[in-house]
Amino acid sequence: MGTLVLLRHGESEWNSKGLFTGWVDVGLAEKGHQEAAAAGRMLLEAGLQPDIVHTSVLTRAISTANGALEAAGLSWLPVSRSWRLNERHYGALQGKDKAQTREEFGDEQFMMWRRSYDVPPPPLADDDPLSQVGDPRYATLPPELMPRTECLADVVVRMLPYWYDAIVPDLASGRTVLVVAHGNSLRALVKHLDGISDAAIAELNIPTGIPLLYELDDAFAPRVPGGRYLDPEAAKAAAEAVKNQGR
Amino acid sequence: MGTLVLLRHGESEWNSKGLFTGWVDVGLAEKGHQEAAAAGRMLLEAGLQPDIVHTSVLTRAISTANGALEAAGLSWLPVSRSWRLNERHYGALQGKDKAQTREEFGDEQFMMWRRSYDVPPPPLADDDPLSQVGDPRYATLPPELMPRTECLADVVVRMLPYWYDAIVPDLASGRTVLVVAHGNSLRALVKHLDGISDAAIAELNIPTGIPLLYELDDAFAPRVPGGRYLDPEAAKAAAEAVKNQGR
Repeated sequence: MGTLVLLRHGESEWNSKGLFTGWVDVGLAEKGHQEAAAAGRMLLEAGLQPDIVHTSVLTRAISTANGALEAAGLSWLPVSRSWRLNERHYGALQGKDKAQTREEFGDEQFMMWRRSYDVPPPPLADDDPLSQVGDPRYATLPPELMPRTECLADVVVRMLPYWYDAIVPDLASGRTVLVVAHGNSLRALVKHLDGISDAAIAELNIPTGIPLLYELDDAFAPRVPGGRYLDPEAAKAAAEAVKNQGR
Repeated sequence: MGTLVLLRHGESEWNSKGLFTGWVDVGLAEKGHQEAAAAGRMLLEAGLQPDIVHTSVLTRAISTANGALEAAGLSWLPVSRSWRLNERHYGALQGKDKAQTREEFGDEQFMMWRRSYDVPPPPLADDDPLSQVGDPRYATLPPELMPRTECLADVVVRMLPYWYDAIVPDLASGRTVLVVAHGNSLRALVKHLDGISDAAIAELNIPTGIPLLYELDDAFAPRVPGGRYLDPEAAKAAAEAVKNQGR
């Protein structure tokens, strides 16, 4: 029941610099804007017309959604935003250089932080200049809900209520739903949808800017496991590139 | 109670060509994108931080909102869209050259269509290539609600339910509300807010790209009649220019 389209934001100003970003609100790089428009054209060419859009509250996802919708002539779609679709909070690693972090802490610790399911990086202090504590967009989050660091398991836990309470009802009403979010919030959702194990999710990379289509059954489970990228070849190449970051 | 900020979209591709636009969904001209970003910077400089945004379902208003919010670092704000904030439907004049229409029908008829309160242009046929009948963004409008032409009085009637049901509740909860819309839907709202007579509204022009601020009292009436433009000098010059269109 319903059609779900997932889209990871295009290259951001910090992706291109190789920095851990997390909840730091950086904008899209020029390439990211181009990826967004290209994603919109892919939707058009596939004859996919979303009825509603969900985004995180981070600018790089919102700009990607805006750019894709404008390119598809769909700017007028209703849109909802939630912090629950945000990227994983990268804790004290936010703002750090990926390659340098790998060198400083070694391959094992680096990959543990980056790809383990349940090991979060050290927390970010509230008085750190890169902390989001006090940002008005999170004014409705009581202190106990505001992350200071997250592992992927934490992202699953805070993302799922939005899936169940906001996205599933849209799908249940037969609508085609576009979710524009981040590498790790989308990995969390795909883990849930495809029933991927805690171990196997480490190997799953989602490429930027290529819509991933899921047709869902009456239990909101994928009819085809893994869904289908609108540009499968580009998706394969891009996923490899993500895997090699920090090398 | 509450703070209201009105913003008319920047120059569109058809504004710059001098064509009647109405419900035809043209994009912003490059100048319009610049006006949008400038409006966002004016909000920042004035220390005005909206809590929520309302737009029409027309791309030129949505792109203006997106551009202004991005410039102000406020892309994450929740946004609602409604056809009730759309520009006046210009009927059979949509797509026609303003100067040419003035020449063809004469000054009196031209100004009657353009500025009279209750004389709509001839209706646009449903099978006209510029008709919006069948556009999926209006799929929830039954035929009797879908305009084929409108005078300003019609715009007041279809806009007011959105003011009362969507915008006033936001203001009542103490929020600062940004409304990004069109020359005539904003004239309709300002007519209501300031209690302007049917005759006097003809003389009121709202400039593009300059936020108009209203502080409201407990009855949602302006504390200062007419509100206050964030750039009063530019607003005055721009309103004069609007008045002279088609001359």
